[in-house]
Amino acid sequence: MSLVNKKGVVVRNIARAESDILSRFARYGVATTHEAQGRSGLLDVRIRPIQQNRTVAGSAVTVLVSPGDNWMFHVAVEQCQPGDILLVAPTSDCHDGFFGDLLASSLQARGVVALVGDIGIRDSQTLREMNFPVWSRAVYAQGTVKATLGSVNVPVTCAGQLVNPGDIIVADDDGVVVVPREQATAVAEAAQKREDAEEGKRQRLAAGELGLDIYQMRPQLAEKGLRYVDSLDELKNS
Amino acid sequence: MSLVNKKGVVVRNIARAESDILSRFARYGVATTHEAQGRSGLLDVRIRPIQQNRTVAGSAVTVLVSPGDNWMFHVAVEQCQPGDILLVAPTSDCHDGFFGDLLASSLQARGVVALVGDIGIRDSQTLREMNFPVWSRAVYAQGTVKATLGSVNVPVTCAGQLVNPGDIIVADDDGVVVVPREQATAVAEAAQKREDAEEGKRQRLAAGELGLDIYQMRPQLAEKGLRYVDSLDELKNS
Amino acid sequence: MSLVNKKGVVVRNIARAESDILSRFARYGVATTHEAQGRSGLLDVRIRPIQQNRTVAGSAVTVLVSPGDNWMFHVAVEQCQPGDILLVAPTSDCHDGFFGDLLASSLQARGVVALVGDIGIRDSQTLREMNFPVWSRAVYAQGTVKATLGSVNVPVTCAGQLVNPGDIIVADDDGVVVVPREQATAVAEAAQKREDAEEGKRQRLAAGELGLDIYQMRPQLAEKGLRYVDSLDELKNS
Amino acid sequence: MSLVNKKGVVVRNIARAESDILSRFARYGVATTHEAQGRSGLLDVRIRPIQQNRTVAGSAVTVLVSPGDNWMFHVAVEQCQPGDILLVAPTSDCHDGFFGDLLASSLQARGVVALVGDIGIRDSQTLREMNFPVWSRAVYAQGTVKATLGSVNVPVTCAGQLVNPGDIIVADDDGVVVVPREQATAVAEAAQKREDAEEGKRQRLAAGELGLDIYQMRPQLAEKGLRYVDSLDELKNS
Amino acid sequence: MSLVNKKGVVVRNIARAESDILSRFARYGVATTHEAQGRSGLLDVRIRPIQQNRTVAGSAVTVLVSPGDNWMFHVAVEQCQPGDILLVAPTSDCHDGFFGDLLASSLQARGVVALVGDIGIRDSQTLREMNFPVWSRAVYAQGTVKATLGSVNVPVTCAGQLVNPGDIIVADDDGVVVVPREQATAVAEAAQKREDAEEGKRQRLAAGELGLDIYQMRPQLAEKGLRYVDSLDELKNS
Amino acid sequence: MSLVNKKGVVVRNIARAESDILSRFARYGVATTHEAQGRSGLLDVRIRPIQQNRTVAGSAVTVLVSPGDNWMFHVAVEQCQPGDILLVAPTSDCHDGFFGDLLASSLQARGVVALVGDIGIRDSQTLREMNFPVWSRAVYAQGTVKATLGSVNVPVTCAGQLVNPGDIIVADDDGVVVVPREQATAVAEAAQKREDAEEGKRQRLAAGELGLDIYQMRPQLAEKGLRYVDSLDELKNS
Repeated sequence: MSLVNKKGVVVRNIARAESDILSRFARYGVATTHEAQGRSGLLDVRIRPIQQNRTVAGSAVTVLVSPGDNWMFHVAVEQCQPGDILLVAPTSDCHDGFFGDLLASSLQARGVVALVGDIGIRDSQTLREMNFPVWSRAVYAQGTVKATLGSVNVPVTCAGQLVNPGDIIVADDDGVVVVPREQATAVAEAAQKREDAEEGKRQRLAAGELGLDIYQMRPQLAEKGLRYVDSLDELKNS
Repeated sequence: MSLVNKKGVVVRNIARAESDILSRFARYGVATTHEAQGRSGLLDVRIRPIQQNRTVAGSAVTVLVSPGDNWMFHVAVEQCQPGDILLVAPTSDCHDGFFGDLLASSLQARGVVALVGDIGIRDSQTLREMNFPVWSRAVYAQGTVKATLGSVNVPVTCAGQLVNPGDIIVADDDGVVVVPREQATAVAEAAQKREDAEEGKRQRLAAGELGLDIYQMRPQLAEKGLRYVDSLDELKNS
Repeated sequence: MSLVNKKGVVVRNIARAESDILSRFARYGVATTHEAQGRSGLLDVRIRPIQQNRTVAGSAVTVLVSPGDNWMFHVAVEQCQPGDILLVAPTSDCHDGFFGDLLASSLQARGVVALVGDIGIRDSQTLREMNFPVWSRAVYAQGTVKATLGSVNVPVTCAGQLVNPGDIIVADDDGVVVVPREQATAVAEAAQKREDAEEGKRQRLAAGELGLDIYQMRPQLAEKGLRYVDSLDELKNS
Repeated sequence: MSLVNKKGVVVRNIARAESDILSRFARYGVATTHEAQGRSGLLDVRIRPIQQNRTVAGSAVTVLVSPGDNWMFHVAVEQCQPGDILLVAPTSDCHDGFFGDLLASSLQARGVVALVGDIGIRDSQTLREMNFPVWSRAVYAQGTVKATLGSVNVPVTCAGQLVNPGDIIVADDDGVVVVPREQATAVAEAAQKREDAEEGKRQRLAAGELGLDIYQMRPQLAEKGLRYVDSLDELKNS
Repeated sequence: MSLVNKKGVVVRNIARAESDILSRFARYGVATTHEAQGRSGLLDVRIRPIQQNRTVAGSAVTVLVSPGDNWMFHVAVEQCQPGDILLVAPTSDCHDGFFGDLLASSLQARGVVALVGDIGIRDSQTLREMNFPVWSRAVYAQGTVKATLGSVNVPVTCAGQLVNPGDIIVADDDGVVVVPREQATAVAEAAQKREDAEEGKRQRLAAGELGLDIYQMRPQLAEKGLRYVDSLDELKNS
Repeated sequence: MSLVNKKGVVVRNIARAESDILSRFARYGVATTHEAQGRSGLLDVRIRPIQQNRTVAGSAVTVLVSPGDNWMFHVAVEQCQPGDILLVAPTSDCHDGFFGDLLASSLQARGVVALVGDIGIRDSQTLREMNFPVWSRAVYAQGTVKATLGSVNVPVTCAGQLVNPGDIIVADDDGVVVVPREQATAVAEAAQKREDAEEGKRQRLAAGELGLDIYQMRPQLAEKGLRYVDSLDELKNS
């Protein structure tokens, strides 16, 4: 039985990643994590931070909501633990302001580290002052109602990705990526390797060495037929 | 006779709200004001600030402009008074840079507190340096001409809302809301009540109390059929 | 033979503007430069900076890339000189993260002053920390491959404009404008005149003089039939 | 007291236009009507027909709905009369499928001639088979709930325009225009004049006469400085 | 181990639904199927048909492709059987023309009944002439390359939904819905019940009975506080 | 001196392609032509036909217009000859209805075969009845003024492409492609070869042969590492 986006259910217990693995992902950031797991798991480009220079990683508490209805946020808060990230998916497109400073106060009280949602949020100035980071599709004051059931901690599709409760969410200025919990260790190791390798390359590139040489691209480029000419005039006349 | 979006007219005298009521709205901000008047009056989500952490409230001097034509801005300046906000609506979609630092200098000289428009603006860096706040649909350098009449101080539809000259405009990081002038006092009172009520709730939520309990949501959720399960496996097998 | 967007070619030598002319454009900024060349050459409004309060001008090294493929960046780096701006055009719409901090290190090592592209970029936080300015259509962590040839230093169409290699690119918070190299001196002179003229006007406007009077608009407005009324009621009854 | 977008109210009696004036507008179509009332009243370009080659005109029964909630449609049906058009405005952006064949059957039974809404609709194939014309912002199967009050027959802002109940709605392949009821006769007369004038021009243009001559544009173009050259080469060398 | 969007793999054998269950879904169409499974599974509204008045249902053969690269289509064809629908998901946003008449010929030869993809397609006129139905995000002639591996028959996220290979895809003029294969029978039964119930209601509504009465909504509306007034004037004065 | 998008000029004489070469392109259509010239020259995906099943090819008479201003259309008509296509580029984004049935009558009288523009058009139903094909970015009734000069027959950038006057424009249901006039013969020959080659392949594919075999893709796929497994379970356990 598929449980994806199933409505009217709250799942109380979910498996979460260890806090040290979360810390590691918060260090790697989104681009490196995304590369480390084979370039998958990125939420759609429309999900953007409301603050700058923040990287977070946490365990997803998933929330399924109806358009213009934020009732389930209150249900979700109770299920949250320190280190969690609220991951909100609407059942259909809606950029209303589902989330604001009151709910953020409630989440902070429980140790939740961020909100990520394919929704609009409001009270953005206060949220920044509270130092509660948010990634959303819009900032918009439009109010919501509390009339229709959604779910908490069922698997959801959010901004183009499948998110299972307990999956690791990594978010920074480049967007948001989800790492399936059972792959967390393997991805973290791959990310670390990538970081190590990149550092050396960064220094060589900063010293003026060319990527063409470091990555030995010249033979392949030649094989594909890349042609060097001295000027546009030479090209025009050839 | 409908006067909405009527072209070729300048109305010299409009009724404005008292400055103390404007100050109050500047304190409440957009989300609270919008809630206080029954969740109406929000301009479309595309209208965004070019600066952060600014809240303003003022009396609307409305400007109707043709696409790519900023002639009417100059006409409008003369009609402005201290405490006004220039509220600009194009007769059809256009994100050209209708407004820049020269016009802002002129508006500042007359005590205008902000520009809000469903238009593009330019000289955004200088505008921030001048401390002149702007809400617009785009930042874009594209120049405009001065060839076609519009209007000043007629009722306009702007970014999805009807704005009458003299209406109160409130704008902050969450967007822009319009309050009909004749409802200003009633809305301000409702906003104050809301603020008072929210403050208590914020403290309780920050202390870890749940919205589920504060707002007594559990019975309604149960009545609607919300179902708690211990795990996804339990759900799968049910 | 048209060379626009021609694939599979690297042109080694291109004519560039003098560095003093570049400095002048960096002072004028985008809006003034755009006006000075007859309101042409602006890239589409979707091209936005990832930082604030930076103005740059440089010589375009053009890069034509395939969607989701950043191979040509490495080829392009070798063709760059101090004062250049990498100007990237994809052969079809793509907001993947073609560009990040490693490539930025490489470009900085060669004295390149900025990247402008109708593409997505990533590592945005690090790029700001490195003080390497970027204008792009998106910030997105999505990785790219290295499999398909593009070109370096052929004429390209980018975000709605034709850019020849060596053209002057000016970018600031208002967007990006391209100045054909052979028109650079004439445009710079026109921009200077405009600046001189604007300064006087800015002071008069800041002192409270009206644009209506400074620009002598009243007769033209009257001729077009602009009508002043004392109130909305007067208008309703007329 | 502003009633625009007021929630929770049904107004039973509204003034409607005479049926013969509606017939006239159905003949003029959207472009002519829009021109005849001074180029105002057009709904946003996102409102598109689901069928081709249909022109309708009717009296607006306005419906204000919450996002993802079509409860008020059922309330609205009871208020409809033959010749009406249901004009639906959501309180915030939503492209869910608020309307389908069952509601269309109900509206047809009451003589309603069309639905126009800044919403999504579904059952589009059946609606075309039923010959019930629809203008909407999307075709999308997403279902809606019935939980939140809206209003019927209050003034609404819909797709950028103010619509009062009883206003005339004209819709065809070019979009949708609203004519304030009290201006209907004046606009219809202006539309007729325009049609008469256009017919003569159409024949002259079809016979090969130039608009430049018919409208005597040459002197004005010359005065503005339009310059004719024989070739691009002449231009380049000038 | 999560297999969602895993690259570089072809799965040869997948379970498919029985052809009679597919026939039933083709009769129910998208809106009814979507309702019957609890309003879930709809692909994003951007996925639109290139033809009118066609409803199809089939088993998903999933294809994961890189932006601007249609190599995997050829790999996928070999895995197709009569009654299948090719369901194409790109690893990042791309509206290039991945699919045209040659590939359609190949799919038709294998009995594939439709293509659904979050991609662009081309040769749209020929596809309609061939009577091969397509749902896509764009019609665009832009060519693609064959350079990068994707996958066939792994679970994919496509236009906001999770699709497992062998899931049932239903598509018509209202969009596209996915039904998890293991839920097919249950959903088909629910859809049939809904159809039966709707038919009776359609007749009553067509006969002029009101939904307000059929669905007994009046008490609930009254309880929520819906207020009937005789006129706008009455409302204004109340 | 760059002439691209230069304002205020009409160029009377332009070189045009021979009519037989135009006929050939009208046969090849957009996708084939685009491929034949190395996958370049496609206008942006937003340019769509208002009719179905029409393919045209003609010589571009370019028109540069200001937003919301269609004055230059009348100037352009005089410069048109049989076989021409009016190619319209606005100086900044605008989807107003610049073009309608009167102008179409005028163009038809001069033998113009189509209008292509990055603009809105209106009278779409009449245009279809007149059998005058149009490709545009929008259908919208919004009227335009005649107040600002543009140009006729200067090089323009339109929907992302450079178009020189006299270039060949090919348009069909898949979009619009521009072929530089001096490349017309070479591109037509390449298109013919492509057509010849495709026909054979279409027959083989329709007969059930696989593209994998026809194009001999299996070795390359294997070399890149494509992995075949028998089932998802096998994959999961590997």
